[in-house]
Amino acid sequence: MSGAATETLSVVVEREIPYSPERIWRALTQPHLIAEWLMKNDFNADVGHRFNLRGDWGGVLDCEVLAVEPNKTLSYTWNHTHADAAFNLESVVTFTLTPKGTGTHVRMEQSGFRPDQKQAYGGAKAGWRQFFTKLEQVVARTD
Amino acid sequence: MSGAATETLSVVVEREIPYSPERIWRALTQPHLIAEWLMKNDFNADVGHRFNLRGDWGGVLDCEVLAVEPNKTLSYTWNHTHADAAFNLESVVTFTLTPKGTGTHVRMEQSGFRPDQKQAYGGAKAGWRQFFTKLEQVVARTD
Repeated sequence: MSGAATETLSVVVEREIPYSPERIWRALTQPHLIAEWLMKNDFNADVGHRFNLRGDWGGVLDCEVLAVEPNKTLSYTWNHTHADAAFNLESVVTFTLTPKGTGTHVRMEQSGFRPDQKQAYGGAKAGWRQFFTKLEQVVARTD
Repeated sequence: MSGAATETLSVVVEREIPYSPERIWRALTQPHLIAEWLMKNDFNADVGHRFNLRGDWGGVLDCEVLAVEPNKTLSYTWNHTHADAAFNLESVVTFTLTPKGTGTHVRMEQSGFRPDQKQAYGGAKAGWRQFFTKLEQVVARTD
């Protein structure tokens, strides 16, 4: 099939969270809150800003902010350099917030998994479920 | 100070776990049990075996089994390659099991943090507390 070499897979998670987009936006963009539901980081919401997400066990992601539309859209690269192609990940994470009733529809798409990265893709599906559970807890207890 | 260039820091965690060394050994060496308390992996307990520990978010560690003394000692490298020296980790994890009463004294040492890797060192201290909490849960519910 023409173009098959560039085919990639995405992980998509969608949730209704019973809080305002503004409140969820803070959890997505304030470093001390990101650390509570995702990972330690030196994030800030400026397009072009490069930052790292750091797991407690030594793993590190290389990220760059691609798009910022306050309370609506946040997008950044989510890359992991590894000598083994199966683990060398170049992906993009995009959050989209849409008001819904008194709450917010939150959509997260992580795109860029190659077809030979089934393991990483499966891991991300499990990982984002856990991240979203913690995100909802952080949003619920912060103003 | 002479030799300062090779000075490294270690994270040490010690716990008394009220189960036999044999039972704890299984949790340390069976891949499906390791996945429950630590990370997904292709471990096996043969000296020289190379394996990966894989976080659900894309982070990957490169490991090699260094020492295996069943029910007593397990040691492997715990390396993370990164262009930024602060995140380029070359460390060794060693578990030592010692019978104590009807249970086991478990000691984990992760050695090799350079003095300029304070962040990774602090993260590992937090990470191992969480890993041990899950390890104890896995040991408690398996035979």
